[in-house]
Amino acid sequence: MKNVAVILSGCGFLDGAEISESVLTLLALDSEGVQYKIFAPNKEQHHVINHLKGEEVPGVSRNVLEESARIARGNIEDIVNLNADEFDALVLPGGFGVAKNFCTFAFEGSDASVDDVIAAKVVAFNTANKPVGAICISPALVALVLGKKAPTLTIGSDDNTAAELEKLGAIHQKCVTSECVVDEVNKIVTTPAYMDDSANLAGIFTGISKLVKNVIRLA
Amino acid sequence: MKNVAVILSGCGFLDGAEISESVLTLLALDSEGVQYKIFAPNKEQHHVINHLKGEEVPGVSRNVLEESARIARGNIEDIVNLNADEFDALVLPGGFGVAKNFCTFAFEGSDASVDDVIAAKVVAFNTANKPVGAICISPALVALVLGKKAPTLTIGSDDNTAAELEKLGAIHQKCVTSECVVDEVNKIVTTPAYMDDSANLAGIFTGISKLVKNVIRLA
Repeated sequence: MKNVAVILSGCGFLDGAEISESVLTLLALDSEGVQYKIFAPNKEQHHVINHLKGEEVPGVSRNVLEESARIARGNIEDIVNLNADEFDALVLPGGFGVAKNFCTFAFEGSDASVDDVIAAKVVAFNTANKPVGAICISPALVALVLGKKAPTLTIGSDDNTAAELEKLGAIHQKCVTSECVVDEVNKIVTTPAYMDDSANLAGIFTGISKLVKNVIRLA
Repeated sequence: MKNVAVILSGCGFLDGAEISESVLTLLALDSEGVQYKIFAPNKEQHHVINHLKGEEVPGVSRNVLEESARIARGNIEDIVNLNADEFDALVLPGGFGVAKNFCTFAFEGSDASVDDVIAAKVVAFNTANKPVGAICISPALVALVLGKKAPTLTIGSDDNTAAELEKLGAIHQKCVTSECVVDEVNKIVTTPAYMDDSANLAGIFTGISKLVKNVIRLA
């Protein structure tokens, strides 16, 4: 049985992991009969957003690992304990948490810096020739870490974001929500999900399911 | 096209809505080609639980509507604006939020009191002969509000919880995660989901999908 590591970036798309993408990733893995284990960094979020108003909540702090544990029902580990040797593949759901808590892409685009621990884990899977699945904005993290390998990937059809990824060396392919892009050489699989705000859940699940199937095939 | 109201009780199974059950409910509705609208009460949670440690966080408060908005991506309304006349059915995902924020079932069992606004909304759908779907612990809320109608329902196979529901007049049927119980007369459909802590997501989605299909059939 394959064993897949999933990294979450909080709980809520504006300051953490996109919740539906996270759950649908786990559903797709479970539906394929694949084991998974969830990880997150034990650090404070960049900030906290009131998701009703879409506004930052001043003076409040939340921990990425503790908030991710809400999605994981407590079945989660500190990412420092993630050993790529123990897994066949890595999958990264999206949400602004990836672009705010894992790196600074939300604020600095292609000039962003990446959290050292997160970067090391992505590199470890890629160096071991193990597939990495990246959903929504997570391909930006992949481009920041692995751009020199010229990975082919997608963030959907947003030209501005795609241009930032291409500055890092990535080759961008447009892709609809219900599909995924597979880089067979670098073993990187990507799907846009909520990069299209108007996407519906059934289409997102179709795209994430295709991503998971390809990740498993490449593992 | 059918139009279904969904009520959430926060974001995280120990103090709010069970996240996976909430997302899988929306996925099942979307997959059936059904429109939905999400509601939550604009009130403070009973308490906040650190989902990594499973312990209460003292001195901290979170708002049920604001936290539910994380799951709903901001597309959510205050439950006072929920008019049963505008919808064909109601679905209630589970999580301790239902038993802590919507009523006091988590603390008082069959002696629990129910939030007046929540109770009125459930009664409004039932009185209009519109189906109510209740997932996980939500059948406890249904029993508290509609127990006098002797609804047939399930909370899985936990005898102690089932006994509390039967004290309220409900007729309990044992049920596995991947199935649902349908009360054709009262138009109440229930499925256990995470009432079994060891349930897997694929089985939960099967049970929730069956619940949604029956709710739509009865609408």
